[in-house]
Amino acid sequence: MSQLENAMAVIINIFGQYAAQAPPPDKLSKKEVKQVIEKELSGFLKDQANPTIVEEVFKLLDQNPDQEMHFEEFMAFVTKVTSACHKSLHKE
Amino acid sequence: MSQLENAMAVIINIFGQYAAQAPPPDKLSKKEVKQVIEKELSGFLKDQANPTIVEEVFKLLDQNPDQEMHFEEFMAFVTKVTSACHKSLHKE
Repeated sequence: MSQLENAMAVIINIFGQYAAQAPPPDKLSKKEVKQVIEKELSGFLKDQANPTIVEEVFKLLDQNPDQEMHFEEFMAFVTKVTSACHKSLHKE
Repeated sequence: MSQLENAMAVIINIFGQYAAQAPPPDKLSKKEVKQVIEKELSGFLKDQANPTIVEEVFKLLDQNPDQEMHFEEFMAFVTKVTSACHKSLHKE
């Protein structure tokens, strides 16, 4: 696997690892999203101590407001964080 | 950095590495997208030998049809491939 493919596999695995903690195993609950933010994004997300961050993430990304995050919504979240990092690295 | 953050950094670096090959350094040309597909996605994209794949990718993702792929369009491409992989891994 290439570096890029490995990165994609990591994203899939991280989602699966946290989603499997509590049913349904194919979606992230708010609690699981909070854990991802605190444990997996402590470097990139400065204000993950902000208690409302999970609510803001859900308001922004929970397209079919079921209070759970399915994989496409998780990818939209990963995309937003990655794009913000890319922008901050390439500030004009 | 966590595994997830490292995966995000890899995506940013791969984009930067190929975009820097020819001006403009912040966008991928069709030729550079072809190289990413052939060198970085040879495992995940079965039909990357398909000569029209680059045209199809651009038709699908080139939101501001400038025949170049900026980072957000590249993330949309990464999202589509990652979601397809996730789906194939979790076929009901």
